[in-house]
Amino acid sequence: MTSDGYERIPRERAVEIAETALRKAGFSTAHRRAMTRNMVEAQAQECHSHGLYRLIACSTVAEAGLVDPVAEPSLRDEGPGVVGIDAHGGNSLLGFDLGAESLAEKVRTTGLAALAIRNCHHFSALWWEVEQLSERGLVALAMTPTHPYVAPFGGTEPLLGTNPIAFSWPRPGGDPYTFDFATSAVARGEVELRARRGESLPEGWAIDAAGAPTTDGKSALSGALLPFGEHKGSAISTMVELLAGPLIGDLLSSQTAEPNSSDEKGILHGELVVAIDPDRFGVSFATAERLFEGIAGQGARLPSVRRREARDRSDRDGLLISSDLLAELRARADMGG
Amino acid sequence: MTSDGYERIPRERAVEIAETALRKAGFSTAHRRAMTRNMVEAQAQECHSHGLYRLIACSTVAEAGLVDPVAEPSLRDEGPGVVGIDAHGGNSLLGFDLGAESLAEKVRTTGLAALAIRNCHHFSALWWEVEQLSERGLVALAMTPTHPYVAPFGGTEPLLGTNPIAFSWPRPGGDPYTFDFATSAVARGEVELRARRGESLPEGWAIDAAGAPTTDGKSALSGALLPFGEHKGSAISTMVELLAGPLIGDLLSSQTAEPNSSDEKGILHGELVVAIDPDRFGVSFATAERLFEGIAGQGARLPSVRRREARDRSDRDGLLISSDLLAELRARADMGG
Repeated sequence: MTSDGYERIPRERAVEIAETALRKAGFSTAHRRAMTRNMVEAQAQECHSHGLYRLIACSTVAEAGLVDPVAEPSLRDEGPGVVGIDAHGGNSLLGFDLGAESLAEKVRTTGLAALAIRNCHHFSALWWEVEQLSERGLVALAMTPTHPYVAPFGGTEPLLGTNPIAFSWPRPGGDPYTFDFATSAVARGEVELRARRGESLPEGWAIDAAGAPTTDGKSALSGALLPFGEHKGSAISTMVELLAGPLIGDLLSSQTAEPNSSDEKGILHGELVVAIDPDRFGVSFATAERLFEGIAGQGARLPSVRRREARDRSDRDGLLISSDLLAELRARADMGG
Repeated sequence: MTSDGYERIPRERAVEIAETALRKAGFSTAHRRAMTRNMVEAQAQECHSHGLYRLIACSTVAEAGLVDPVAEPSLRDEGPGVVGIDAHGGNSLLGFDLGAESLAEKVRTTGLAALAIRNCHHFSALWWEVEQLSERGLVALAMTPTHPYVAPFGGTEPLLGTNPIAFSWPRPGGDPYTFDFATSAVARGEVELRARRGESLPEGWAIDAAGAPTTDGKSALSGALLPFGEHKGSAISTMVELLAGPLIGDLLSSQTAEPNSSDEKGILHGELVVAIDPDRFGVSFATAERLFEGIAGQGARLPSVRRREARDRSDRDGLLISSDLLAELRARADMGG
């Protein structure tokens, strides 16, 4: 254990921890494989909120019957440019794996294609999916609603999800240009953390239950987060909600409940992934590189760079994990099951 | 003339003004028709910056040889989901008109299709195009680079364009849900206006030529605008630049010059329009309406509502226009030609 409460573990140990926890929660071999790959890689890239920490929530929702841990996703060809996946109440990742090959085939023909995953539990970072498509040379976009945490700009009540959106552009010979962010001003977990520590929030993050601006974490949690970027971010969030919800015949964030609420709504919803074959559009990768050089060359940060640096450290030294989390996962593994 | 320097004119008079100015600048009948329809409707919807005011700039760039006023766009079928338009150095609107029918046909088959307009002069508001697609029952997105006015978040120099993005969702029986905004914190015209009036800018809009934050309009114009929404808005702007530039084999904003600069680069670039056939995805329009009701019901504004109110006033009372602009356009019409 390091002085800051973190330690490093070999990747194989992280895989073993995830496998054990997911087996205990009743997940099928196929789901375990898909979820473990994802969480271990998030851990390796030091996305702590989407790494092994999610084993706790994934186990809880499976044990509560909110997610079917043995659901087998099914694929339907919905047109030359559309692949539909019904997750049948299971986790989204296995559905993505099932649909990705078909999506990649379609897009090579049409130039543009979409994968609609419906009726799924979605906990994972979206960069995972768009980067896999960029590894195949594709440009990709992914988006998903979440649960009603965010008030629209100018509003007073939670309605929108934190509605993440991710985009990835393949860079020949290197890691793709990737961004992945919540369309809320801040992640809900960050507000929870500050509320627990009694720290105040910056202005512009949240409103209280009466709809008034607040810098108090607890008031924010009983109120609503705000979208990033005022009316423009609110519009982007609304677009995410429309495209990954009503467009594909699935739910709005407001039609779902957060996993630990007493609301009887389920936690399942949809996801939309769009792939573009750049070769079909006459791409110039060299021109794109000029843009990236122009950004990095003036000292601005390209998104995802920190994540890749973390990945390289993890490959060399093992995966960084909070000692508290490791202890909790060990204790859970030891309890029967 | 009203007390605030505006007056109202019949729509037919606005058409006549536009036709006259564009004929004088050498635009072909086809271009005149496409551009007049667009500018008059922008004027009717009180988008003053994209209305008849643009006649001045469009005439100037044609007279300077930066745009070919008689260019005939050509269409190329680039795959089951891709329509390519070469504007051959002419205005984008005629190219859009030429490609829209083919785009709409393709998307009914594939579910998702794109229109890449290359080598065009683009001055017009993007809502014009996405709303025409939504009138056909389609969901649509449009985006275009502009000229290097905006520094990436964390950067110090202009690189990105103001890179607008527009989205439209058809609402059966009513106007679509549409947003259309620049991904800069503010439109460049707004900064020009404040600089002329000697008014200061809010923080977060701009940096000066040394890369330091500024609230001085003139310093901002010799420096750079900032993106909306910090690193997230900067990422969205980068995506717009990639998709409507290098993806379609066209230029970055930084590879173009603004029309009134002495830079020898041209002002032409590309545009990308994406259409989605919601019926191919199993859409639920009723679910989307719940979202719009949830937004408007808590007092938040749906985008484009003010524009539609203006349109209704214009239909009733005539089109609102600045008396100064009207005088300038009249004077130009009287000068020979």
